[in-house]
Amino acid sequence: MKRIPSYAAGEVVASASPEYAAGDVVVGVLGWEDYTLFKPSPAVLMSKVDASAGFPLSHHISVLGTSGMTAYSGLFEVCKPAKGEKVFVSAASGSVGSLVGQFAKLAGCYVVGCAGTKAKVDLLKDKLGFDDAFNYKEEPDLKSALKRYFPDGIDIYFENVGGEMLEAALANMNTYGRVAVCGSISEYTGAGRRAVPDLLEVIYKRITLRGFLSWDFLPRFAEFNAVIGDWVRQGKVQVMEDVSDGLESVPSAFAELFRGHNVGKKLVKLA
Amino acid sequence: MKRIPSYAAGEVVASASPEYAAGDVVVGVLGWEDYTLFKPSPAVLMSKVDASAGFPLSHHISVLGTSGMTAYSGLFEVCKPAKGEKVFVSAASGSVGSLVGQFAKLAGCYVVGCAGTKAKVDLLKDKLGFDDAFNYKEEPDLKSALKRYFPDGIDIYFENVGGEMLEAALANMNTYGRVAVCGSISEYTGAGRRAVPDLLEVIYKRITLRGFLSWDFLPRFAEFNAVIGDWVRQGKVQVMEDVSDGLESVPSAFAELFRGHNVGKKLVKLA
Repeated sequence: MKRIPSYAAGEVVASASPEYAAGDVVVGVLGWEDYTLFKPSPAVLMSKVDASAGFPLSHHISVLGTSGMTAYSGLFEVCKPAKGEKVFVSAASGSVGSLVGQFAKLAGCYVVGCAGTKAKVDLLKDKLGFDDAFNYKEEPDLKSALKRYFPDGIDIYFENVGGEMLEAALANMNTYGRVAVCGSISEYTGAGRRAVPDLLEVIYKRITLRGFLSWDFLPRFAEFNAVIGDWVRQGKVQVMEDVSDGLESVPSAFAELFRGHNVGKKLVKLA
Repeated sequence: MKRIPSYAAGEVVASASPEYAAGDVVVGVLGWEDYTLFKPSPAVLMSKVDASAGFPLSHHISVLGTSGMTAYSGLFEVCKPAKGEKVFVSAASGSVGSLVGQFAKLAGCYVVGCAGTKAKVDLLKDKLGFDDAFNYKEEPDLKSALKRYFPDGIDIYFENVGGEMLEAALANMNTYGRVAVCGSISEYTGAGRRAVPDLLEVIYKRITLRGFLSWDFLPRFAEFNAVIGDWVRQGKVQVMEDVSDGLESVPSAFAELFRGHNVGKKLVKLA
């Protein structure tokens, strides 16, 4: 049977490699399986976790894993926020968005997020420290909604959604605005219509849109993780994890991502 | 009657300002009129031309004016071309495109342009030194056309057109591709449909799209002009100017821009 790869954390139970010993905790591209056999190689992107840091195992694949790296690199490296800038985060209660908003607050920005339920909106405002948040499903006109939440315009848009949301954000962006194109959840399935951005807005407002993958910043993961780890330890960043139990929950857990049922990082616990 | 402003060159016939003397040649935002009265101020963006450089007056509003500045800043500052990179220029026989392609060749790039007539395509290849060129009106499928002209993909797209052309370029771009969004001629009039870029291409290929205006680089115009002036003097850059005669030709000259009748910079000579 073909292994289905997944970014995951696991404990080494046996090792013929001098690099790893039984009991070590590793993160990287493992399989959806109880036991994974791998040969150390750069392609496996496997790294040993410093257990002495004292974080729950799950953190190493959420806030200290791909989600944290994506949020950190996308916000700080791609968007380069300045203190006082206005930041809009879509899919703000998701694994990446929930961190982007909190990181942006720590950078001294004004942050508004959107999500798809009242509970998520409350979470953003009450627990995650967003300056404001709204339920996009209750907004018949996203352009005027953003105009209301950003009377002085948007400087940075962290894009997770695509479609009409991107158009509305562009229409409300300030000169020299930056859009980190991280995801496009409304367009993945083909169910939502694609964005039709107004290029004249892009030109006249000198907007930059930049697609990125956190892997591009792989050489700097340790540096980013040190900062994020400190924030988590000091309670400055809340870690949202949404854990399902058992291999049999994988299909429904995956489908939930597209239905907007998860809050924070969706994880599946195998053992 | 309200003055209609235009970027233009003119000779000072009388001056009450110590900065300007009769006989000086100036460029800046003048009016569509035989004589313009202006007060020196930063807002007028007026600058004196060094007549000793020996360029035709027209060059100061084409290759040494906004067109040259747009081409230079868009290519070198926005796209940062490296030797050997593959550059695609749309509206390549226009005032900006014709310079972008030539500048990119001087930077050691492989350059392909597109235009809308056989004569323009021939001009690009025979006179302006493009590596290749094609007539987009003869291509039923722009995506496959670009695949043919760029079997190894596009690194830089200098965007003047919008619509389907942008989509086709994105589909053919390489990882870390850059798009300088300079113009969107197909979308200005509302006649052409807007671009529906595939955001997944933007993400997975880490593409950057950046809108820009040459004015953003105003403090560096003298520096850019020195380089461009040398290229023109050494015959390394061909200057394409398309001059109409007389104020009465302004409306048709303007309309020609949208019909694709001009080759190079469209100018109107008043006196």
